[in-house]
Amino acid sequence: MAELTEQFGQLPGIGRKTAQRLAYYTLHMDEARAVAFANAIMEARRRVHRCALCCDLTDRELCAVCRAANRDSSIICVVEDPRDLMAIERTHEYKGLYHVLHGVISPLNGIGPEALCIKELLGRIESGDAKEVIMATNPTVEGEATAIYLSRLLKPLGLTVSRLAYGVPVGADLEYADEITLARALEGRRVI
Amino acid sequence: MAELTEQFGQLPGIGRKTAQRLAYYTLHMDEARAVAFANAIMEARRRVHRCALCCDLTDRELCAVCRAANRDSSIICVVEDPRDLMAIERTHEYKGLYHVLHGVISPLNGIGPEALCIKELLGRIESGDAKEVIMATNPTVEGEATAIYLSRLLKPLGLTVSRLAYGVPVGADLEYADEITLARALEGRRVI
Repeated sequence: MAELTEQFGQLPGIGRKTAQRLAYYTLHMDEARAVAFANAIMEARRRVHRCALCCDLTDRELCAVCRAANRDSSIICVVEDPRDLMAIERTHEYKGLYHVLHGVISPLNGIGPEALCIKELLGRIESGDAKEVIMATNPTVEGEATAIYLSRLLKPLGLTVSRLAYGVPVGADLEYADEITLARALEGRRVI
Repeated sequence: MAELTEQFGQLPGIGRKTAQRLAYYTLHMDEARAVAFANAIMEARRRVHRCALCCDLTDRELCAVCRAANRDSSIICVVEDPRDLMAIERTHEYKGLYHVLHGVISPLNGIGPEALCIKELLGRIESGDAKEVIMATNPTVEGEATAIYLSRLLKPLGLTVSRLAYGVPVGADLEYADEITLARALEGRRVI
């Protein structure tokens, strides 16, 4: 029981009390459901791996985006995380391919470029037909530094490297926007 | 007492109970402070009016920005509200002048272009040396519609009309950005 509680407690956002409640609940599940739960964990671990092309998580050789015939392979959008890829897919606007880095360069946390899926990105660019790479790392210090690091690697290959626009979020109120975002929105203003 | 409570209750964000508490508090103030409070209301009403040039609120003929010698008069930033002007001033990045519309075009609320400080804007552009007008209305449907309406008036005068950049706020997390903002950030991406 203590072991199961500890296992639940290691999940993010789950404290000691919640872990206890979940452990008790799991003990009182009927046999079949408990087995299905345990199997789901094992199966996911066994079957889900990185897409051979874009490093997104998938249970096939290639992920759904890389398999799709109607995506524009001349453009690659680089994201930190599979969840960022999902956020961009929800816009239904982007028709190119992705590349998932699985993290950002973060010297403070001991994460260097070699810990990310960068050589996979360079490999597919050398053998593929990409013309533009969009840096869609998060608009944070580390995301920005990673974008700059990658752009220095990619530009000598003759690619266009672009960055997501910084600016005011749609529907927001200028009055509550932070100073840096407002300054970026002014700097990035576009002629209409 | 009921009258005072009602007066407080008319202020935005102040409900009946808070209005009562404020009314009681005011009654128990010492005489001098109560007089000072009442006078502050009267004085502000009497002395604060719109800047003769930019329509911002001021107690002088011209507001502090319009009076300043070191501002770039070739560029005018159009905002909805004096609070938006203050938000942009806090960036310390913008060195041009402003124009305050005091609202946005909103047919549903019966606010047409004639209710805003638009003729004042056209007047100062005709007699001044402005070369660019930045539309910094809020990134909402009405703010956007007002920006488009004004750009149609201003472009025939030979001015550059620009719009604040839409995009992801600095420091945000892509995963939590809304779809429209992300789509705009992709669309507005810039070569780095």
